[in-house]
Amino acid sequence: MTPPLLERRQQLLSPSYRLFYDEPLHLASGQGAWLTDVQGRRFLDAYNNVVPAGHCHPRIVAAIVAQTERLNTHTRYLHDTIVDYADALLATFPFPAQATFTCSGSEANDLAIRIARHVTGGEGLIITENAYHGVTSSTAEISPSLGKSVNLGAHVRTVRAPAAGTDFAAGVRSAIADLQRHGIRPALLVVDTIFSSDGIFSDPAGFLVPAVEAIREAGGLFLADEVQPGFGRTGTHMWGFERHGIAPDMVSMGKPMGNGYPVAGLVCQPDVIRNFGSSIRYFNTFGGNPVAMAAALATLSVIQDEHLMENAHTVGTYLRAKLARHPAILDVRGAGLFIGAELADEAIATRVVNEMRARGVLISSSGPAGNVLKIRPPLIFSHEQADILNDTTEAALDVALSDL
Amino acid sequence: MTPPLLERRQQLLSPSYRLFYDEPLHLASGQGAWLTDVQGRRFLDAYNNVVPAGHCHPRIVAAIVAQTERLNTHTRYLHDTIVDYADALLATFPFPAQATFTCSGSEANDLAIRIARHVTGGEGLIITENAYHGVTSSTAEISPSLGKSVNLGAHVRTVRAPAAGTDFAAGVRSAIADLQRHGIRPALLVVDTIFSSDGIFSDPAGFLVPAVEAIREAGGLFLADEVQPGFGRTGTHMWGFERHGIAPDMVSMGKPMGNGYPVAGLVCQPDVIRNFGSSIRYFNTFGGNPVAMAAALATLSVIQDEHLMENAHTVGTYLRAKLARHPAILDVRGAGLFIGAELADEAIATRVVNEMRARGVLISSSGPAGNVLKIRPPLIFSHEQADILNDTTEAALDVALSDL
Repeated sequence: MTPPLLERRQQLLSPSYRLFYDEPLHLASGQGAWLTDVQGRRFLDAYNNVVPAGHCHPRIVAAIVAQTERLNTHTRYLHDTIVDYADALLATFPFPAQATFTCSGSEANDLAIRIARHVTGGEGLIITENAYHGVTSSTAEISPSLGKSVNLGAHVRTVRAPAAGTDFAAGVRSAIADLQRHGIRPALLVVDTIFSSDGIFSDPAGFLVPAVEAIREAGGLFLADEVQPGFGRTGTHMWGFERHGIAPDMVSMGKPMGNGYPVAGLVCQPDVIRNFGSSIRYFNTFGGNPVAMAAALATLSVIQDEHLMENAHTVGTYLRAKLARHPAILDVRGAGLFIGAELADEAIATRVVNEMRARGVLISSSGPAGNVLKIRPPLIFSHEQADILNDTTEAALDVALSDL
Repeated sequence: MTPPLLERRQQLLSPSYRLFYDEPLHLASGQGAWLTDVQGRRFLDAYNNVVPAGHCHPRIVAAIVAQTERLNTHTRYLHDTIVDYADALLATFPFPAQATFTCSGSEANDLAIRIARHVTGGEGLIITENAYHGVTSSTAEISPSLGKSVNLGAHVRTVRAPAAGTDFAAGVRSAIADLQRHGIRPALLVVDTIFSSDGIFSDPAGFLVPAVEAIREAGGLFLADEVQPGFGRTGTHMWGFERHGIAPDMVSMGKPMGNGYPVAGLVCQPDVIRNFGSSIRYFNTFGGNPVAMAAALATLSVIQDEHLMENAHTVGTYLRAKLARHPAILDVRGAGLFIGAELADEAIATRVVNEMRARGVLISSSGPAGNVLKIRPPLIFSHEQADILNDTTEAALDVALSDL
């Protein structure tokens, strides 16, 4: 007799793997904002930003299928789609730039670190206190949210996240001074432009400006990590950095880029990448392959043609206003369909997340204290789905609070 | 008027991108071992190991299409295919092991470095003189083949590749001693088990045994990088390390794993991964996703059901014997369909590679001196295709030699 799936998984996969929820979800299929498990039960997906156009969007599936049937090679041959996609992608940027494609956001951020160190001659990296930027050696060293068993790099300094009342730029200046006091030249300030793992901080728009000025004055570069906020999720702009009116030296992107197909990238200002690129070649076997580019091009077209950014703004504004009415929610933050709802503590947040899963709605929690509900549905999310999410949040909160 | 593709590519993509051949190939489609360019000209692909089953293999395409239409999420939900694939993959290993899935071979090798440093408490890494193991910060530091503009890590030592007459284990012991003399504890010996970028060294089978013993005696681990030789390419075994009769602590794999779909992985002995996994979580958004696992499962099934390893052995043996007859080829090395043919110098090798491209056959060159033809066709390669390759090599050699 075959043992149950969970037991086989634990036997065959690395113990580093973790599952969501007290009662893990065993999935079979997905369509739009809905996932279906192997028992046929449906779940409203309000968490997976990897599918901005919804699960199995027909136009994106068709693009992947057509290219998979035709050709899949790599960037050492000429191919039209990578150039067409770069063209479409860079047209969404408010400044001239050049693209490099990778498989994952980790690889994009890791490449940005290589470039920054090459360009500046420095080693020092500045991040936020509970940042997450990836799982390669170099990006794990700048990802304190992975927990204390993963060491930060010796050349890494952390800054308090920009909660209300925090002078973020002052924190950056003080990190720069500390690096310099240790004889370490600052190379890079890295910021997830909506502070996804720090608890979601979006306002007031513009607070990043003096921080970026400070790192540049010290000879370092600024990387906007758009892996989570990018591609229209914040509702008013394609990229989170645009809300702040800044032009980053480098911009990384990933998760939603191919609506699930593995594809990510790094966009650099030409002055930043010129010297690195002339002396150092970069070849990523799967990065920028024809199928990945077809998936990314179709995803970007759907985001634009179906006005998903505008939908994220409308439905996000509606949803935040509804959530803000519940007295147990202490603060509702975010932009568009990237929403953080702060609760009293981690125990309540964990209880709410699991109770919502039991009631058929999927979200998660975040922040250094684990007390912020993280709500990040597909950008096709409707007002009706926002109502379901809000009603289920309220019901789960009532259960969680009555337990205490 | 739209500028030509090459010009648009140079404008829109990073200057780090490079193209194959003096006259780049502009590809449109692929089928089996054949690629077709936009003018309809056909090229015999004797280089791309990313498609062991040939371009657009119908059974693998069907598996990718079916799962893309159904669901693509990640490893924080239970899903059958990742467990089924891990089961099938680990059944090919001669020792008990556990799997972690990534997007790229770079990510797999990078994770191995993290694990080795965690497990051993050491920092020292030992590699071959012209090794290639990836493009993340940590794997680029152990990839001297990227060129002198990419620095090796301060804790990295190189060993001469095992050309005939070289005592490889003695080189490893001396690298260990040098690390220790600098107060650096050895963490990991990394070897591409067919020395792909060092010039392809496969014999005598077994020469890795004393090198692995040496690193273990010094408290370090051994990683077999199977990204290029793995999945049956060497003809007699599924994994290059098996030819040497060793059981690596960790084994990385990638390129051919999904017949073009971005998927890679790291397989570890349970004792090696236990402690890392219990304290450090590893989540790779796209790594091990349901479509990647469907692609990998179909690819492994095709390799096994169509006896591609046996074909690699038969056709590879036939091809090596034919190539060895040409007087300008100084040495023919390799195993199965991973073949190195040594020429007098880099100028001749480059000329041959470009001349063969002009005659419709795709190969490349390798080795620290750039003088080794690197021949790595899909594992479905037929005797007839081997004849075309051999005849074209001879014709190109005649042209190259008459030029001198």
